[in-house]
Amino acid sequence: VSEFDLIARYFRPLTNGMPGALALTDDAALLDPPPGRSLVVTADALVAGVHFRPADAPGDVARKALRVNLSDLAAKGSEPMGYVLTLALPKPFEEAWVAAFAAGLGADQAAFGIGLLGGDTVATPGPVTVSVTAFGHCAPGTAILRSGASAGEAVYVSGTIGDGALGLSVLEDGAFAKTLGEQAAEALANRYLRPEPRLGLGRVLVGQATAAADVSDGLVADLGHICAASGLGARVRADRIPLSPAARLAVETERVRVADLATGGDDYEIVFAAPPGLADGLVKQAGCPVTEIGHFETGAAVVLVDEEGRAISLDRSGYTHG
Amino acid sequence: VSEFDLIARYFRPLTNGMPGALALTDDAALLDPPPGRSLVVTADALVAGVHFRPADAPGDVARKALRVNLSDLAAKGSEPMGYVLTLALPKPFEEAWVAAFAAGLGADQAAFGIGLLGGDTVATPGPVTVSVTAFGHCAPGTAILRSGASAGEAVYVSGTIGDGALGLSVLEDGAFAKTLGEQAAEALANRYLRPEPRLGLGRVLVGQATAAADVSDGLVADLGHICAASGLGARVRADRIPLSPAARLAVETERVRVADLATGGDDYEIVFAAPPGLADGLVKQAGCPVTEIGHFETGAAVVLVDEEGRAISLDRSGYTHG
Repeated sequence: VSEFDLIARYFRPLTNGMPGALALTDDAALLDPPPGRSLVVTADALVAGVHFRPADAPGDVARKALRVNLSDLAAKGSEPMGYVLTLALPKPFEEAWVAAFAAGLGADQAAFGIGLLGGDTVATPGPVTVSVTAFGHCAPGTAILRSGASAGEAVYVSGTIGDGALGLSVLEDGAFAKTLGEQAAEALANRYLRPEPRLGLGRVLVGQATAAADVSDGLVADLGHICAASGLGARVRADRIPLSPAARLAVETERVRVADLATGGDDYEIVFAAPPGLADGLVKQAGCPVTEIGHFETGAAVVLVDEEGRAISLDRSGYTHG
Repeated sequence: VSEFDLIARYFRPLTNGMPGALALTDDAALLDPPPGRSLVVTADALVAGVHFRPADAPGDVARKALRVNLSDLAAKGSEPMGYVLTLALPKPFEEAWVAAFAAGLGADQAAFGIGLLGGDTVATPGPVTVSVTAFGHCAPGTAILRSGASAGEAVYVSGTIGDGALGLSVLEDGAFAKTLGEQAAEALANRYLRPEPRLGLGRVLVGQATAAADVSDGLVADLGHICAASGLGARVRADRIPLSPAARLAVETERVRVADLATGGDDYEIVFAAPPGLADGLVKQAGCPVTEIGHFETGAAVVLVDEEGRAISLDRSGYTHG
């Protein structure tokens, strides 16, 4: 099959509901945010063997490619609307792989209310490479940037931390998976393969959070990005970092430290700055876990401390996808 | 060097003039078209060994990645404003390659009045892969689509056809380059390496052309896209297809047929539909060559004919990058 066949069979149907996509039959697409809204744009590329495992189900690869971008939009407090996809595939094109990949896109499009706007499908002598540019919208001036935190504000994080990195370990290390047990291993693998962008929380944070970032490189690294953009440091209580039952099991029974989880990647939670004491209210509004884990302070470093305020060493400051 | 170093050293300076890029220090960028204008979006991916030669100068690769997208925006009659870049690079990252690549982007940004909005830099075990999503704007409802042509309208094309494909032949085949001579070979190679998006013509075509496409897959293939979208066929006079002196030399002295040039790729001219007899006026308004080469008719095929109306066989219907 040619790229024209793939586009007509699998990608054209994904433009459903996006008239500006012109059914992928034109050189470009037309995109307007809803009246009175500003556009938010983000892009992430995923390479087989680097950002996903070549054997991962194509539908999961597709969903991850969308979700890592939707997670960025969520952290800015914006509403997703559509995306552009460039896909580099080894030749000969494997139609079954593309069909399953497109089915994954279709499922997530329906789940998140977005549509395909355009893109490009090309051959590569290298690994599958997926690049997504995603579009969201927000009221003008309301996007939550990394740069708005103040000293004295609290550090919050959504959901649980470390599951993504543990999920990858479980998938790559059968012995580790076995000692954790089937239920924990499956829960962790699922977090790695199918991250959940915190779009509902992002909506709630508009007007309440002063700065936010999504946790893709690791809690410490992404909190560090907020600190760098805001000209601050931050102090985080390791014992307050929220862990899933599976991650807690790994910490209690394996050689996994909370510091490792705080520097692992692929969580796709939101770390944000807001006045202290808001966690309970935000949980009620957003319907997802939110935990206050520390505070911003003058300085430039992210310091992880124990219950008595003693600094905990970090073997690494964050996972780099490369 | 890490991808963070590359971003800070080489890509952050390219956001100059794009406040919405947030200096590449955030999860996303903010993008608003000028007041009262609609956004136009296009994306193209280039893979080393497929869309450019691995030995090509990095600055030329960068410029080609931008220009093939700007060519799409030009064909829609839109004004370019910015772009998002995802770049997959083999590890270890070659800083000198990235520096030269970014210098090429910078030169073209200045030439075309655009800026970098955001992106992603990742490692790949495969070849360099460049994906650009470019943004333009137009007055609402004025984008020139592929679907607006009518039977009886003329087929026009800008500039000259076939130089891009001949340029690639010249670069790959030293003997062919030698028989053509240094001057012709250099002119053709330059067309392949540094296409010129027809942005000035695109502006002039708004309100005058009823349909347009850029010539990336080859004149016959891209005219075929207009025909398919418009539900028409087209008849093109081979002897009217505009050729550069170097391409004419290749036709007269080598085994190159005009039909080969009409089905070659990488011209990045604009093929468009408009009422007959407008060429002279368009040349004056746009300051670039425009030639009337045929007409649209009922049917579904693009037919190349000689002076006496006899169909000329096409060995291939267009160059497919794969």
